[in-house]
Amino acid sequence: MANISTCAPLTRDSVIEAQRLIEPHVHLTPVMSSTFVNDLASTPIDPASLGQDTSRQPAKPRFRLWFKCENFQRIGAFKARGAFHAIEKLKMEPGWLENGGKEKGVVTHSSGNHAQALALAARENGMPAHVVMPSITIPSKVAATKGYGANVIFSTLTDRLAVAEKVVVETGARLIPPYDHPDIILGQGTVGLELQQQVKDLDAIIAPCSGGGMLSGIALSCEDTGIKVFGAEPSFQGADDAKRGMEQGERITHVESTSIADGLRSYLGVYPWGILYERKLVHSMYSVSEDEIKAAMKLILERMKLVVEPSAAVPLAVVLFNEDFRHMVEKEAQGGIWDLGIILSGGNVTVDGITKLFT
Amino acid sequence: MANISTCAPLTRDSVIEAQRLIEPHVHLTPVMSSTFVNDLASTPIDPASLGQDTSRQPAKPRFRLWFKCENFQRIGAFKARGAFHAIEKLKMEPGWLENGGKEKGVVTHSSGNHAQALALAARENGMPAHVVMPSITIPSKVAATKGYGANVIFSTLTDRLAVAEKVVVETGARLIPPYDHPDIILGQGTVGLELQQQVKDLDAIIAPCSGGGMLSGIALSCEDTGIKVFGAEPSFQGADDAKRGMEQGERITHVESTSIADGLRSYLGVYPWGILYERKLVHSMYSVSEDEIKAAMKLILERMKLVVEPSAAVPLAVVLFNEDFRHMVEKEAQGGIWDLGIILSGGNVTVDGITKLFT
Repeated sequence: MANISTCAPLTRDSVIEAQRLIEPHVHLTPVMSSTFVNDLASTPIDPASLGQDTSRQPAKPRFRLWFKCENFQRIGAFKARGAFHAIEKLKMEPGWLENGGKEKGVVTHSSGNHAQALALAARENGMPAHVVMPSITIPSKVAATKGYGANVIFSTLTDRLAVAEKVVVETGARLIPPYDHPDIILGQGTVGLELQQQVKDLDAIIAPCSGGGMLSGIALSCEDTGIKVFGAEPSFQGADDAKRGMEQGERITHVESTSIADGLRSYLGVYPWGILYERKLVHSMYSVSEDEIKAAMKLILERMKLVVEPSAAVPLAVVLFNEDFRHMVEKEAQGGIWDLGIILSGGNVTVDGITKLFT
Repeated sequence: MANISTCAPLTRDSVIEAQRLIEPHVHLTPVMSSTFVNDLASTPIDPASLGQDTSRQPAKPRFRLWFKCENFQRIGAFKARGAFHAIEKLKMEPGWLENGGKEKGVVTHSSGNHAQALALAARENGMPAHVVMPSITIPSKVAATKGYGANVIFSTLTDRLAVAEKVVVETGARLIPPYDHPDIILGQGTVGLELQQQVKDLDAIIAPCSGGGMLSGIALSCEDTGIKVFGAEPSFQGADDAKRGMEQGERITHVESTSIADGLRSYLGVYPWGILYERKLVHSMYSVSEDEIKAAMKLILERMKLVVEPSAAVPLAVVLFNEDFRHMVEKEAQGGIWDLGIILSGGNVTVDGITKLFT
């Protein structure tokens, strides 16, 4: 993670440069499609099935959906992109190597995919990684992070950042935050760029939004291309903070949600807010219920044969069930077919986790 | 399904011709790999963990595994290949069209993937399909088959063939058996050919074996190429009939197993027996326990992010847990790395099914 002062500007060109830097280290993930899911998404929903006013006119959008399979990315999620990019940029920072940066390594606070991503990227660069995790983190995630060679340090839920900063002071390791940093944003944005290279003439991309690192990176990758960008959030217990914040014109900085989309429980970071809201690079935000997320996840598992974590199913849930989104698409497409890229952000769910979700 | 008298010879060239015929109708499925699974498969097993004599020397094979993802095939399984090939051949049969063959359609008896495959292939050719299913078939499979436009006829477990033959007499529809026919075998064999085209210099291919249509087709696709072919079966309640039959030199014609690998409960057909045993085109057969199948399936789901049905996990279970197989590979590879193709035969399992398997 380079110093903010030496970071690249938050532009599409910087995403292109990020792609060049991380290309040797990450997978070019496949794009998949499903005629069945396209047909389903293009079928008007009976308002009664949504418990809505049956006199309401159901939307009639026509979709061609392109699923970008970041569940097949290294460590099973897009987070590998940002982590590798942050470390590549760190290696390029003047004085970092000479001052023993490599021996000091990196540190982060995360109980999710970023922890594993950073551990992997550090290991491949011969650097130590310290990962601060709440002591209540489920054992499989701790084991996976240790499996990539990281030194795991436990904290309480609330003192994670303080513990991480203590590690910085004690070891001299560089802090690599999970999303709120230009290097991370530019790294995650490469998923949007790659999708544009794989599917020509996309009308739009929809991606999950939590801290907003990936969504804002994708927004940068689409700037001035004509491709619209949408964000998808769970609505449960206020996890749709980005949507609500944009409606009220002020970033929300406190969320406590236990949504099943466990990767989407954070609130939007400062840099993502600047890109998405202030620079208006996201078209609009949509949210869905827990049941809608489960239904979309089941469809992806059963029909597309892809294992995805609940967070990754949120954009498809919007496409299938959010009538505001569907009406918007019907209007935008003017009777034509809409080519929509959907980011399947990750696949880190266990069989045990699937079982618990669906029983 | 053409008359036996006009079928192509059971040779590699006929598989090549089959590929040409079905190419416009089936997916070119991807080949995937996993460094994690390669490493795991290449790690000697502690004999104690298998409940075996701890003085026994564990095998030390070194694998590079190539997973052929037929779970992404149309209808979610390789069966689409045989069904489309059988219908293409039927269309080429002299007099079939002139005698109203298209209007009369096709019929089969299957409660599994072949039912859906034939229904799809018939629909795309504008032909009716009659599918005889035992009345105890789970509703989701009946619904899927009807979803492809088939006319579903219920039978008891034991009179399936008789009911199907009655439909033939009444409608003039042509019977398309699930595996024991040259056209089906040649169609399924295209998966082996395709894998050879996608991965150069394979040492071997391992595939699940039930009626043996796919395994014998793959064996034909590998004839005279130097690529060895292995079959994998569940051992539960004698479902390893092919292995046992080959050991005793006589085909076994009765199996009643309730293995979780529900696609592998049939016994070897006459044509597959001729190819695999009499022509010696399969190198050897291996079997695994129910727990081993579940462990392999869990690994494919959690680490490779692929939804596969239990039957599809049987070959990987052999690779990971069958020490006879592992010792054989160690010997064959002579210290080198073995490039092994693994057929992930299908992904037709529901979330409910996964939940039931793992709780």
